[in-house]
Amino acid sequence: MSVTAARGFRACGVAAGLKASGRPDVALVVDDGPDHHGAAVFTTNRVEAAPVTWSRQVVRDGRVDAVILNSGGANACTGPEGFLDTHRTAEQVAGLLGISASDVVVASTGLIGERLPMDRLGAGVAEASRRLDRAGGEDAAVAIMTTDTRPKQAVRTGAGWVVGGMAKGAGMLAPSLATMLVVLTTDAVVDPEVLDRALRRATARSFDRVDSDGCRSTNDMVLLMSSGASGIRPSEEELTALMTDLCLDLARQLVADAEGAHHDIAVEVVGAAGEDDALEVARAVARNALLKCAILGQDPNWGRVVAAVGTTGATFDPQRIDVSVNGIQVCRATAPGDPRKLVDLSGREVHVLVDLHAGTDAVVVWTNDLTHDYVHENSAYST
Amino acid sequence: MSVTAARGFRACGVAAGLKASGRPDVALVVDDGPDHHGAAVFTTNRVEAAPVTWSRQVVRDGRVDAVILNSGGANACTGPEGFLDTHRTAEQVAGLLGISASDVVVASTGLIGERLPMDRLGAGVAEASRRLDRAGGEDAAVAIMTTDTRPKQAVRTGAGWVVGGMAKGAGMLAPSLATMLVVLTTDAVVDPEVLDRALRRATARSFDRVDSDGCRSTNDMVLLMSSGASGIRPSEEELTALMTDLCLDLARQLVADAEGAHHDIAVEVVGAAGEDDALEVARAVARNALLKCAILGQDPNWGRVVAAVGTTGATFDPQRIDVSVNGIQVCRATAPGDPRKLVDLSGREVHVLVDLHAGTDAVVVWTNDLTHDYVHENSAYST
Repeated sequence: MSVTAARGFRACGVAAGLKASGRPDVALVVDDGPDHHGAAVFTTNRVEAAPVTWSRQVVRDGRVDAVILNSGGANACTGPEGFLDTHRTAEQVAGLLGISASDVVVASTGLIGERLPMDRLGAGVAEASRRLDRAGGEDAAVAIMTTDTRPKQAVRTGAGWVVGGMAKGAGMLAPSLATMLVVLTTDAVVDPEVLDRALRRATARSFDRVDSDGCRSTNDMVLLMSSGASGIRPSEEELTALMTDLCLDLARQLVADAEGAHHDIAVEVVGAAGEDDALEVARAVARNALLKCAILGQDPNWGRVVAAVGTTGATFDPQRIDVSVNGIQVCRATAPGDPRKLVDLSGREVHVLVDLHAGTDAVVVWTNDLTHDYVHENSAYST
Repeated sequence: MSVTAARGFRACGVAAGLKASGRPDVALVVDDGPDHHGAAVFTTNRVEAAPVTWSRQVVRDGRVDAVILNSGGANACTGPEGFLDTHRTAEQVAGLLGISASDVVVASTGLIGERLPMDRLGAGVAEASRRLDRAGGEDAAVAIMTTDTRPKQAVRTGAGWVVGGMAKGAGMLAPSLATMLVVLTTDAVVDPEVLDRALRRATARSFDRVDSDGCRSTNDMVLLMSSGASGIRPSEEELTALMTDLCLDLARQLVADAEGAHHDIAVEVVGAAGEDDALEVARAVARNALLKCAILGQDPNWGRVVAAVGTTGATFDPQRIDVSVNGIQVCRATAPGDPRKLVDLSGREVHVLVDLHAGTDAVVVWTNDLTHDYVHENSAYST
């Protein structure tokens, strides 16, 4: 159900022919109200796609009526013409739905540096406007897929209100988002400022802690819309908690479907002197190409973990680092601990635990192993 | 000839049985004077191997008489016992050569987290002390190899004086050095302070601008020794220029032999508002896993270049970035330029040129493509 689990939303996905495969590639999500509140976070990449530039303006006043998304083309690095294409798409949606273009968020994903085929996209948008449905969430989630092997959807239920969402992304996953589009909806009654704060807190603890390959995309966006259709106003804490749980679910789905990955790796850093320290260390470990290769080879190579920790500026004593892999403490006080042969890395999920012995803060960052399939998929993507 | 090209140096390489393959794994280089000056730069990784901790102290007073190096074991993350092992090795070399242990640099490379087999190492050191030779440079260069497929050596000749050197490293290459050991020698007459400055300037423009896989090792060291045996004192500028040229040669050899690489990629950034900006952008591009995969696939994917540029804090207008690949300007003003099909990526060398149009500074950073062979080699290394 994803984006249509909450009342007040309709959605659909259609095939407009943007993808050579003929698979669905245009999704539309509409907020029928009574509220039309929206908030969004965007990529921090300074080279941002035209839809990102456009949508930043749209959400600024806290009102969003609809979002139109396409896969099969990122509309990034397409110059002023690319921005006009985004503008035209928003105008078309607005005309079809009888709303203002300035309340239509636009999102695109796919190859950078190519104009969208506007004739085909226009026909797809028109078709999408006719196929909007209260049960269209699944179709929308399918239509935003690129190299994803499955749609990502999640729903959480509060006391009389619901949050749901869909996500796509299977590469270029990194803090500050990643080739990732996410649309979240709720029928709770929420003021725009609260919506914005809840979204930022939820994404900071979920999508921002996924780091598949350290690359940061030009098109990322997480949009949250509230219809108020439930008539129930949860507290900000309730909303944030449920949103965070929802986003963690979707973030984990992204990791589990990352391009070519064989293992999902949870890098947990404990004993840090602060959350920033913990995050810096966890990300350094999660981005270490040599460790990611070792995990592929089912090698609990804690030396590569410790070497990654050492590149950070976090507070710790270089002689006191402990590392456990899947429950076996293979490194104790920065020296060999229990036998590495005890570590079982045959399963999909891997837990790397680093104890800095410098404080009480802890975080988890998710990443994947680095595989032949990742190299293959990304060396052949645009050709 | 490498480290024995300059007068006043003897060297050798022997097989001590540290490597399972039985290949040479212990190298010794001795400065017979009349000068015994030394300077070194070390990894900035805070988790540093025992030999790095030891050797930092040795070079502090500017006097170095010898360096003993081993492959087949990094002696990193081996606790206080590992440090004692390094100390014992320095004492042994000192005893055999009749010098002070506090003037013996020790360097190790290999797997992290395992003690060295001190009996075998000790026998190898004893043998090495008997086999020192004025023509032993080549043997020494072979003995420090790990996953290198060939020894790296270079020599440059000044007006009556010589600089030469050897290097090893084929992975974990990154700014701030990388699983990289380098020994440089000169017979020029140079004061220790000048030696130190020349070394730092030369490495900053060479080894620090090689970034094979973004990983930074626990063991890296570049050591420069001067014997003064030529009796000629070059100016600091002459010394620095020749040293820089020598180091660039060795650095390029490291890139050309990087683990599993199929392409050597020169990332040149021009039009930067400052050298720091240029370096930040070049490193961001050089570390982008998606671009490195694309180059493997002979895909001039400039979108991934521009996306990497956008992650930096350098001064530039996101709408004005130009990118050329092997001479074809595939991206102009952050939009499609000449047809990508014109780009020939079939050769080993690739030139990615980024023009920021923000100033006049420029740098080149070298990296490699990301290949199946890299993944294979690094997923199977310790097992």
